[in-house]
This record gives sequence, structure tokens and C-alpha cells, in this order.
Amino acid sequence: MCANQILASNDAKMTTEEMDLAGQLASQLRVDSIRCSTQAGSGHPTSSLSAADLMAVLLTGHLRYDWTRPDQATNDHLIFSKGHASPLLYSMYRAVGVVSEDELVNTYRQFGSRLEGHPTPILPWVDVATGSLGQGLPDAVGVCLAGKYLDKLPYHAWVLCGDSELAEGSIWEALDKASYYQLGNLTAIVDVNRLGQDGPTELQWEMDRYAQRVTAFGARALVIDGHDVSAIDAALTEARSDPDRPTVVLARTIKGKGVKEVEDKNGWHGKALPPEMADRAIAALGGRSDLQVTTSSPDAGTPATTRDPDAAVTLPTWEVGEKVATRAAFGAAITALAARPEVVVLDGEVGNSTHAGEFQDVCPERFFEMFISEQQLVASAVGLSVRGYVPFASSFAAFLIARPFDFIRMAGISEVNIRLVGTHAGVEIGQDGPSQMALEDIAAMRAVHTSVVLYPSDATSTAALVRSMADTDGISYLRATRGSYPVIYGSDEQFPIGGCKIHRAGTSDVVALIGAGVTLHECLAAAAELATAGIAARVIDLYSIKPLDRSTLIDTARLTGGRLVTVEDHYPQGGLGSAVLEALADTDLPPLHVKLLAVQGLPTSGQPAELLDAAGISARHIVTAAKDLLGA
Amino acid sequence: MCANQILASNDAKMTTEEMDLAGQLASQLRVDSIRCSTQAGSGHPTSSLSAADLMAVLLTGHLRYDWTRPDQATNDHLIFSKGHASPLLYSMYRAVGVVSEDELVNTYRQFGSRLEGHPTPILPWVDVATGSLGQGLPDAVGVCLAGKYLDKLPYHAWVLCGDSELAEGSIWEALDKASYYQLGNLTAIVDVNRLGQDGPTELQWEMDRYAQRVTAFGARALVIDGHDVSAIDAALTEARSDPDRPTVVLARTIKGKGVKEVEDKNGWHGKALPPEMADRAIAALGGRSDLQVTTSSPDAGTPATTRDPDAAVTLPTWEVGEKVATRAAFGAAITALAARPEVVVLDGEVGNSTHAGEFQDVCPERFFEMFISEQQLVASAVGLSVRGYVPFASSFAAFLIARPFDFIRMAGISEVNIRLVGTHAGVEIGQDGPSQMALEDIAAMRAVHTSVVLYPSDATSTAALVRSMADTDGISYLRATRGSYPVIYGSDEQFPIGGCKIHRAGTSDVVALIGAGVTLHECLAAAAELATAGIAARVIDLYSIKPLDRSTLIDTARLTGGRLVTVEDHYPQGGLGSAVLEALADTDLPPLHVKLLAVQGLPTSGQPAELLDAAGISARHIVTAAKDLLGA
Repeated sequence: MCANQILASNDAKMTTEEMDLAGQLASQLRVDSIRCSTQAGSGHPTSSLSAADLMAVLLTGHLRYDWTRPDQATNDHLIFSKGHASPLLYSMYRAVGVVSEDELVNTYRQFGSRLEGHPTPILPWVDVATGSLGQGLPDAVGVCLAGKYLDKLPYHAWVLCGDSELAEGSIWEALDKASYYQLGNLTAIVDVNRLGQDGPTELQWEMDRYAQRVTAFGARALVIDGHDVSAIDAALTEARSDPDRPTVVLARTIKGKGVKEVEDKNGWHGKALPPEMADRAIAALGGRSDLQVTTSSPDAGTPATTRDPDAAVTLPTWEVGEKVATRAAFGAAITALAARPEVVVLDGEVGNSTHAGEFQDVCPERFFEMFISEQQLVASAVGLSVRGYVPFASSFAAFLIARPFDFIRMAGISEVNIRLVGTHAGVEIGQDGPSQMALEDIAAMRAVHTSVVLYPSDATSTAALVRSMADTDGISYLRATRGSYPVIYGSDEQFPIGGCKIHRAGTSDVVALIGAGVTLHECLAAAAELATAGIAARVIDLYSIKPLDRSTLIDTARLTGGRLVTVEDHYPQGGLGSAVLEALADTDLPPLHVKLLAVQGLPTSGQPAELLDAAGISARHIVTAAKDLLGA
Repeated sequence: MCANQILASNDAKMTTEEMDLAGQLASQLRVDSIRCSTQAGSGHPTSSLSAADLMAVLLTGHLRYDWTRPDQATNDHLIFSKGHASPLLYSMYRAVGVVSEDELVNTYRQFGSRLEGHPTPILPWVDVATGSLGQGLPDAVGVCLAGKYLDKLPYHAWVLCGDSELAEGSIWEALDKASYYQLGNLTAIVDVNRLGQDGPTELQWEMDRYAQRVTAFGARALVIDGHDVSAIDAALTEARSDPDRPTVVLARTIKGKGVKEVEDKNGWHGKALPPEMADRAIAALGGRSDLQVTTSSPDAGTPATTRDPDAAVTLPTWEVGEKVATRAAFGAAITALAARPEVVVLDGEVGNSTHAGEFQDVCPERFFEMFISEQQLVASAVGLSVRGYVPFASSFAAFLIARPFDFIRMAGISEVNIRLVGTHAGVEIGQDGPSQMALEDIAAMRAVHTSVVLYPSDATSTAALVRSMADTDGISYLRATRGSYPVIYGSDEQFPIGGCKIHRAGTSDVVALIGAGVTLHECLAAAAELATAGIAARVIDLYSIKPLDRSTLIDTARLTGGRLVTVEDHYPQGGLGSAVLEALADTDLPPLHVKLLAVQGLPTSGQPAELLDAAGISARHIVTAAKDLLGA
């Protein structure tokens, strides 16, 4: 190996006194990690013990953080990508004085406690929920993009990673983007303790092979003994030294370090020490202590990018009847939103198809190309949200939702605010075939905590909803269509999230056709055809699928004698039709008769109209379903 | 760079005549790629042109394939991970005589054609659907695991990758596992044409950086000029030479090669050449031709692992009332299934928690540890299915479904047969907290093409269903619980997929409580409590959520006056409750009143019983919901 550095103790920057303090702190962190997990009867003490020296040195000599002001813009970020080492993290919080001994020891993992089994941002010092491995580092890339390119502040992100999680591809997506964007403000500290949950890791202590990978992906690899305080100090000092290269500290450690009975032993992952063993271990570690550490405070500073949520945004407008793709409307709307300096756009190398690229044309400084790595695409959005930005991430819906679904799930748990725009949804895309067709995204996204699911049918509503998304908390998802369809709404129309639009309403309507996106157009065509047969059908544009307008649905079902046809360019399970059924599950309505039209079977290539028809969701099928309900 | 090899022309193994033939074939492949895409009016000709020389040499001199017998066990595998180069693939099929000129030119991308926009296994020579980038190579790892360890046959997998897809973390998960398992039978051929869909790729033509990454991940990197026939020949020859190291041929190519007007030009991705340009290009390439290539046939051979689906399997049994976790029952059942030599188990480094590790104890030769890389976990299962094995992949449900969801989606499109067992579902897991709780997996999995969703409540039904999964086509998913609960069923009970079990049935039942998994036990407790209040409630164990027993649900709703309570340890959208509503959406039943009990809000850490109660799905809540329905 040529590229990685092995640091020796004489590179250390801390004073001897500081190093002594770090050593004492490490013992306390170990003792506290054991105490809280043994008291809880579960948790991951051995995974905490291996990293205690690393974190003691970080806290004593390198982290810049004002613990009384977690919202201070210049604070460093500390992210435990190995979230199971929460005993260590919470012990650090005790050491800096923001968590009491009582809270730590007596509430960890208990119902109602802030100190959950894996960290969540219910704690003000936690940026993102972790515990699904391989996500903390990708999230930190988003934080560091903000730091370097938007805030332009000197804060640093320190990420504690496990060695097992280096098997996740997302780690390499993260390092790749960190080096591409020259994120010298990012340091991953990898606790290479050789043992996973279930036996040795793939590479065990082959530090050179880890270093080779890290270097190949464009980061600096610093290999150290993770229990040598001065070597750690030297590495963390070095980590801040290059403004343009991310650093990965590869720390060789021993799982369970400090407790001889479990050191480097398999079978102790995720197990609290039994009380007697804990007592022996605590005694051997020097007993309980109450060391308090004062970390360096960061310099004052404010982000270079000033938020201006009230900035004037002039949305594009279209003539009713004009044919426009909703993805094009997204591109135009997001470009208009560039007027708000907190809006950031992230692309998955398809900006020319999603129209996100139009934002880049007017605002390249707030456009980040993530190439084809959708996990990192979402993780970057999460990190930008942590820093208070308003990120929109877009790609084809099939890839945007399915590929990073675990990242979206965790973003829900983090309760961050991100916006996802997925284009080319459904069979409507045509010739590219089923691999490119999102047909399960509505089901998946509806089930995510904090999610909002939008599916507009025309350009006007798309633009209005894109603007609303910027001010919507949680994870908002807008589903857009490939093809061009007539604009339905005038530019003064309002589209509240949770609303819907009614078309062709009459007091004698006997059936309602409920669609969204491309199927709304099919519903309108079907209603027109039904009218020629003397059947009065109203059409509901359910552009907001979650939340949805339950009261209008109830009124509609009452009016039409419970006859509803739902139509969606999506598989039959869990989508728009299910959302309608869930809303009407417990009412005092007369019997409901709901025909759920959705994509049947595996679609193929073909023209959009052919595929909509073959899937059973074209106007012809809607007419038949409505007539069936009426016995006509 | 030290580790990668740059091959010179004088390493070539083909004769001059063969090389001439390959050159002519390359021209024909280019012409045909242009013809079919121009005729279709869409497609990716320029991405086909860049790889034409690579594939011409592969076909002429290296691929061993009996085109008349795609099921021949010793055939090589050819997988287009860059599925958008389908014009090239189909042109190869024409060159070997299995697709006619008429089919190629006149049906490509048309409705009803086998030649879809991206390849799918509707064609007998296609192993897996591709088109979501970064999946073909991971799938091939599964094929090669089968080849090396189970079939023990000398077939080779050749995977054509794009350079853009090297940004997907899944590619690195694949190479990591390929080197870990010493898959010398795997060769990735990367078409480094520098241009993605939307501008230059991240690394463009930095071949050394690609090579460094490949080498660091344990594969051989061979850097060549991808238009030099003899260099290609040398590389593909070399690729077969090491039985224990996978090879990555990094071929520097020019996008659009052979058509001067588009060569190395941005803006031509995914665009057919206009007819006039196509005519000029075809003329410049020497015009249409009808070259037929005979590829080498593989030697005869049969897999070392003989399938025996009728082998005697003795399932474990338990006493009714005994407390057993369903995950433990899975471990016992899968271990019993080791008697069937086609059953293979894949683990995500949690085999001690999922109990999959018990299979390893009795059958290490058919157990593959994928470490913490769930995308590769599923992809390996896909590849093993291609080779006719019966793979079970297991991990925690939260990670097993959400992390590789795009791989599961594509497995549905491939219509392969894989089994997924996700343990530790729902809030029931307790202290580990929300990051470890699958709460959206039922919604996501129900919406996957070919999926079967099972959620047993006790050990007996779990074991029976695990056995059924081995004989179930498509993607079957079994959701298992962490904690131990009483065995409900005797060992002679049958659990057909699509069935359910009724408990406490009476002719005067006024409400039905529908649960599965852990909530079935809550439903039983609630029914007992309701009985003490004089309310007759039957309980339905909906262990098969997809497909489900619609007729029993209809009968039940009719009997109870439409009063149903559904209860699930899952978010309220798209899960068990929605499945019930979908099944009852269009019946002649009296008005339904369905209470959907599901997890409300964001769970925390705590004891299982505390969390079930806080989520609103414990017996207490079920009793209240039932009484509400009755106005009691």
C-alpha cells in the first residue's frame, strides 16, 4: 500500500495532560456503556467498548460543539453510523453534561425515554436516526455538501462507522460522492473490531485491504491502533488538514476492549453483560466516575446561504388545453423555486428526462448531481435537510422509490423534511418496458411515517403542488408522468395538500370515477362516454393520495349510492384504490360497491395507449366497470 | 497502478480469420442495432454501438452456448447489466440465428413483441430482467455461486456493464462477494464509453481509477481498448484463466462508435437515429448483412447437486401451548428442508437472530453468508433461482425488504422464484427501537408482481408455510416475530397458501377480529375478554395475506353484520387491513364497518407489550374497537 498513512504517536497534537484526560474519559465511557446496558438488560456494550478510545479523543481534543446550543450553525456534526453503539453515544452526552447519570443509567431503552436503543433525533444532538447500517455516512455527505457549498462554514462531520457496515454498497456510494465533491470536511472513523453480529467480518483486521478500497474511492485512509490515544489524536488532527479530501480513519480495535472476559470473543454482540460480570468489569476499569469534559466551542458564524422562505416565486402558467407533461411542469416549477435560496435540487443522472436539469441551468450552485446512486441521492437530501435546506431529489419513480426505500424509511424515522419527485411512473411510459415502470411506489410511500403522496394530472396542479412541497414537513413525494396531456386547470386554481377536485358534478350522479395523474384523463374520457349513454358520472381528481379528502369521498359515496370506480396506473395492492377504501372503512354509508381498476399482470413494451388498455385502466375499462356497478 | 494488466494485441488467441469474422460481425451488430431502434423510433443505439466490438469477440471466440438448448446445464450465461443496450443483445440473437431479421427489425419495442425495450426472461436466453442499473452483475454472482459450489460445472457468466452503473453501490457489493467467494467463473465487461444519459460520467475515461477500485475489491482488472478486436480477445481469454478470481474487463470505448455524427457526443443517449441519419450510418458501416455465427457449444455435463423435490422432509413439531418464536420455527423448518438438495439458504450476517444459522450447522455447503449487503443477498437468491435452486434469503424484515426493494421489484419482473424470510417485524421487537422495526413491509411486498405474503402466528403454521414456500413460484415472503408466543395449532393442521383459520366460531358472532402474527394473539385475548362481556367475537388468523381467503372473509362479514376489526403490527396504509378491504370492495354484502387497527405514529424503544399498547394494537384496543362497532 502506498496511499494510506500509518500515523505514529509522535504526530500527536494533544498535550500530555489532555491525553491523560482522554484516557480517563475512555474508561468512564466504557463503565457508563456497561452500566446503562446492563441496567436495561439489552444493548450493545461490546460495540461501544471498542470505540471508546476513539470517541474519548474526539470529544477531548477535536469535536467543536456548543452543547448548550445544538442549533449553533457552526457546530461540528457527530453521527453514529453504527447506531447500535448508542450506549457509547449517550455516555458521551453524560460526559459533556447534557444527560444526567440518572437518565443514562435508569432510562436507557425504557419506554418513554429519549435514550432509545438506536439514536433518533428526539435528542437535540442527534442529526439523523441510525440503526440501519450504512446510512449515517451517506447522510453525512449531505451535511458536508451543505457545509462546503452552501453554508460555507468550517464545521466538520465526524461519523463513527462499524466495520460490518462497510459491506453495504451505500458506504461506497457515499465515499465516491464525498471524493467527487472534495468533502474535506468529512471524516469517517471506522471501528474495525473484526467481529460482526454473527462471527468475524469479511475482512476482519485486514487493514490494508480496507485502506486500498478507501483510497481507490478517493478518500485518505489513515490506519491506526484504535486504542492508542496519541495515534488517534494524530489521525483526527490530520483529518482536518486537507480541505478537499475526505478522510477515513481505519482504527484497528478490539471488540469488548477493557473487559477481558469478552474481549475479541464471538457471541457477545448485542448482549448486555450480566450484572455480576458488569460489576467485575466496572471495578477493573477503575469504577464509576463523574468526569466532565468541556469540548471546544466552535467560532461564531452564519451560513452564507440565507434562507428566504418568503421570497417571491412566480410559478409558470399554461393555457387550459395545452399539452404538457407533468414532469415538464415540475422542471418549470422547481426552476421558479430557485428564487428561494434554501431550495436545493439533487439529480440521479436523469435530469434531462425528469426536467430537474432546468434548475441546474439557472442555479448551478444549488444543483448536485448524484449520478446513478439513488441511495446517496436520498441520503444527500436527508443531510441537506439536517442543515435546514429544502432539498428536492428526483429521478425516475421506479428507481427513486424502490432503490433507496430503506433510506426513505429511515428518513421518516428521522422526521427530516425531504421532497421526492419521481417521473415516468406506471405503464404509461410505453416502450421502455416494465423495468422502468414504477407500479408499487404509491403503496410503498403511503406506508412511510410522515409521508405525503401527490399525483397530479396536469401542469397547473403539478406546479402548485411542487411549490407546496417546499413548505411541507416530512417526506413529500410527487409522482409525475412521462407523456404530455391537456392542462385542465386555470392558473388561479388552488390545490391544497389533502384536497381533491371534482369534475362533471351533478346532483343526479350515479357513479364516481376516481383517478389521479394519467388515469384522471382516462376517467374524464370515460365520463364523457358514459354521458352519451345517459349515465351521469362525476370524476374526482385525487391528486393528494395521502393525506386525502375523506369528507369529499364520503359525500361522493353517499350521493352515488356507494358506487365508485378507482383507477390507477399502479398495481392493485396498497395504492390509490386502497387509500379510498381505508378512508371509507368505517362510516355510516350505505353499502359500498367499489371497482378497483389497476394494472393487471406484468406489463410489456408498447405505446402508452396500448399499455393502459392492456393493463385494464383505459377509458374503455372504466366505462365497463361503471356500467357493471349500475347493472347497465 | 500495479495490479491491473494492460493487454496488448499479441496476447490474442483467436486466429486472424476469426478476428476478421469478429470485425465483420461487429459491423453487422451495429447496423442491426441502428435498424431496429430507428424502426421502433426509440431505444439506445449509441450505447449498443460502443459495446459492439466487445460482444462480437465474445460471441465469435469465447461464449460457449448451445442456442438450440437454452436449458443446457453447461451453457455460459450472458447478462446485459446495461439492459438498455438491448438492440445489441437482440442483434446478437439474430447473428446466432434464434431471432429472425423480421422479428428484430419490425417488432423491437412493439406491443406484443418478445423484444422489449429492456430484456426480460420472456426470451429463453435471458436469465433476468435488467434495466434498473447495477443489478445484472449482482444477479450473476448468484449464478456463479451456483456454478462453483453447487452445480460444479465449468460454465462462465459474462456480464456487460455500463460505466454509469459503476456508481451504484450494488456493483461493489457484487464484486466484494465475487472475490470473497473466489468466483473465477465471473467476468464483468465494462463498456466505459464516458457518457451517461445526461452528460459525462463521474470518472469518464479515467481507466486507472476504475482499475484501482476493481482491484481493491479483489477482482482482476484488465484495461483494454474496447474497439481493438485482438485486445478484447486477449482479455476474454485471460478472463477464463484464473479459477479463483473474478475478472473485470475495463474497456475504453466510444459511445456511438462507428457513426461519426454521434460518436462521443452528448445528447444521443436513449435516442434512435433519425431515418436519414440511420441510412447514412448503415451505408458507412458497409450496409446490411446476414452473417451467421456459430458459437462454441459447451461440453455436456450435469449439475453435481441433483434436485430432489420429493425428498422426505420431517418438519419439527411442537406441543400446543409451548412458547416458541416464529423465527425459531423458521430455523427449525429450514433445517429440516436441508433434506432437499436444491434448498439453499442465504444470510445477511444475522443468522443467529433469524435462526437461519441452524441450517448452516447441518448443511454448510448450501449456506452462503452475504454479510451486511441486503441488495446482494436478494440478488444472489435471484441468480440461484436462475440455476434452478430453491433459495431462502433471510434477515431482519426491516432490512430484508426495504434495503433491496428495487431488487425484489426486478425479481418480480424476472418472474424468478425466491423466498424471503424477514424476522423481527413490527413494534413487537421492543427495545431496539424504530430503525429495526419493519412497519411498511407488507404494503411494499403486496404490491410486487408474483408476490405471496405470509405472516404466521405460531411455530406450527410457520413450519408448514416454510415448507410450502419451497414449492411456491414467484416471490414468497414470510414475516416472522421476535418474541415467543404459545403454539396454537396441532401438528396435523394444514395451512394452504391463500387460506386462513377461524377461532372461536359461533353462529351468533357479532364481530370478527382479524389478525396475523403477533396480533393474532392479541385478537384471541380480546375475544376472550369480549366473551366475558357477553359479546361473541370470532377470530380469523389471516396467515396468508396475499393471496387471501376472500370467500371466508365474505362469509364472515355477512355473519357479523359487516363488523370487522383488523389488527396489524404495521403502519395503517396498504397492510393487512387494506388487503381485507380490497377483497371486500365489490360484494353484495350489507354495509361494512371495519375498524383498522394499526401502528399509529413513530414507535420508540420499550417492552413489546408496552409498544403494542402504545401503538394501539393490543387486546385492550381491540376490545374497545369491537365495542365501538357494536355501540356497546
